[in-house]
Amino acid sequence: MVQFNYIRSMINVVILGGGNVAYHLTTQLLKNDTINLVQVYNRNIKKIQHLNNSTSITNNLSELKEADIYIIAVSDDVVKEVSSKINFKNKLVVHTSGAIGMNDLQTNCNKGVFYLLQSFTKNRIPDFSTIPICLEAENEKDLKLLFQLASKISNTTYEINSEQRKHLHLAAVFVNNFVNVMYKIGHDICNTTNVPFEILKPLILETASKIGEISPYEAQTGPARRNDTKTIKKHETMLPINQREIYTLLTKSINKTYGEKL
Amino acid sequence: MVQFNYIRSMINVVILGGGNVAYHLTTQLLKNDTINLVQVYNRNIKKIQHLNNSTSITNNLSELKEADIYIIAVSDDVVKEVSSKINFKNKLVVHTSGAIGMNDLQTNCNKGVFYLLQSFTKNRIPDFSTIPICLEAENEKDLKLLFQLASKISNTTYEINSEQRKHLHLAAVFVNNFVNVMYKIGHDICNTTNVPFEILKPLILETASKIGEISPYEAQTGPARRNDTKTIKKHETMLPINQREIYTLLTKSINKTYGEKL
Repeated sequence: MVQFNYIRSMINVVILGGGNVAYHLTTQLLKNDTINLVQVYNRNIKKIQHLNNSTSITNNLSELKEADIYIIAVSDDVVKEVSSKINFKNKLVVHTSGAIGMNDLQTNCNKGVFYLLQSFTKNRIPDFSTIPICLEAENEKDLKLLFQLASKISNTTYEINSEQRKHLHLAAVFVNNFVNVMYKIGHDICNTTNVPFEILKPLILETASKIGEISPYEAQTGPARRNDTKTIKKHETMLPINQREIYTLLTKSINKTYGEKL
Repeated sequence: MVQFNYIRSMINVVILGGGNVAYHLTTQLLKNDTINLVQVYNRNIKKIQHLNNSTSITNNLSELKEADIYIIAVSDDVVKEVSSKINFKNKLVVHTSGAIGMNDLQTNCNKGVFYLLQSFTKNRIPDFSTIPICLEAENEKDLKLLFQLASKISNTTYEINSEQRKHLHLAAVFVNNFVNVMYKIGHDICNTTNVPFEILKPLILETASKIGEISPYEAQTGPARRNDTKTIKKHETMLPINQREIYTLLTKSINKTYGEKL
């Protein structure tokens, strides 16, 4: 029954940062009646000026107000520095980065991580309820508090340690950043032959949706999967050197995965 | 007003093939009251046996019935051979392949292409209304007939010549087959650290959906885009050699695209 001591009706939060994650998280927390967004800090006050009527804003770390959780959503390379300026007794400081460890936080407060596994774009309002939130904390009490906060805004929360998060972030580079490179090359190829990129969009969506039902291993199709060397050779001659290198390496990778079964 | 001569109330179709494209196309055509699926041919009769109550089936090319359009949905390497067996006067023979030209059809009939730009999986019922259908024909009359057929099952039809289609097929390899390789690597990385692949799915869907609104050039994010060499080096040490090669090459590709602007 002890855990009920940790359930608060209202969680007081300060957000530090003015980028895409901070922007969307701020918007989301402001919508929730059981979260009190006490303050938003950003080095450049102009980027958070629009919040002036909704919460307290500051560009001065020595003016930080007291809260239960301080969420640092700044660039990885300044997390350390920003965290070192937060010194309240018995409060929790978390960062939102996939790439750095919990112990990269340099603070006397309790430490934790609140990693939103999604790609944020300024002008696209994300559906927070589906965003996986990966949580880590030094102690059980803080972990519970983070779960409580996270489940107010999302239906999928996970406990993920720093080592796992590091790998998740790397996996995200492949399924997000590198997938986008494939889209970019598809776009370039369409341009060379005066075909609208639009035409590929249903295929792009189907490729992503399919993974909801079958594993990537089962979902693989195409000339490399069939070992259709005639088509592969034809494709290679059609591509400029940079794209050809990518085509050849990824074809080799598919061959390696399925090779034994051909 | 001449074109109205070509509008028929009922189009008679024969499908040749028993793979995924043939399977889903057959199902779709059978649903439509203004299309008469006269017959389905497949070398292996077992694969089309389930159609026995819906249409005439055969595994003998010399028994083909008369129709307006013969749709060849077989493997690329047998399109030529199958097409050479269809010899009806003034009828139209089309293939459904992205990779081969219209003139790869070896028939005395009129030639054309009916290319469905989507990835088909046996157990997933596709939404045909959103599938782009790329059409080509030797003459205006046949092109109109193909448009008429295509628009009965899809809302997006395009006239695409053989050269454009060859490029589209190559672009599809990138946005479908190679994207799937990225998913596979993401899946493998999750496995190594005991994290469910599920957790990446909202990111995968968002990455695909985003492309509906902004160009791949604008959508690019991540360590390579930011030229975050510290994270890139860390990532490279975490990967086995095959995946590292892919990581390095794609990072180099992003650097090249955005390099001048850093």
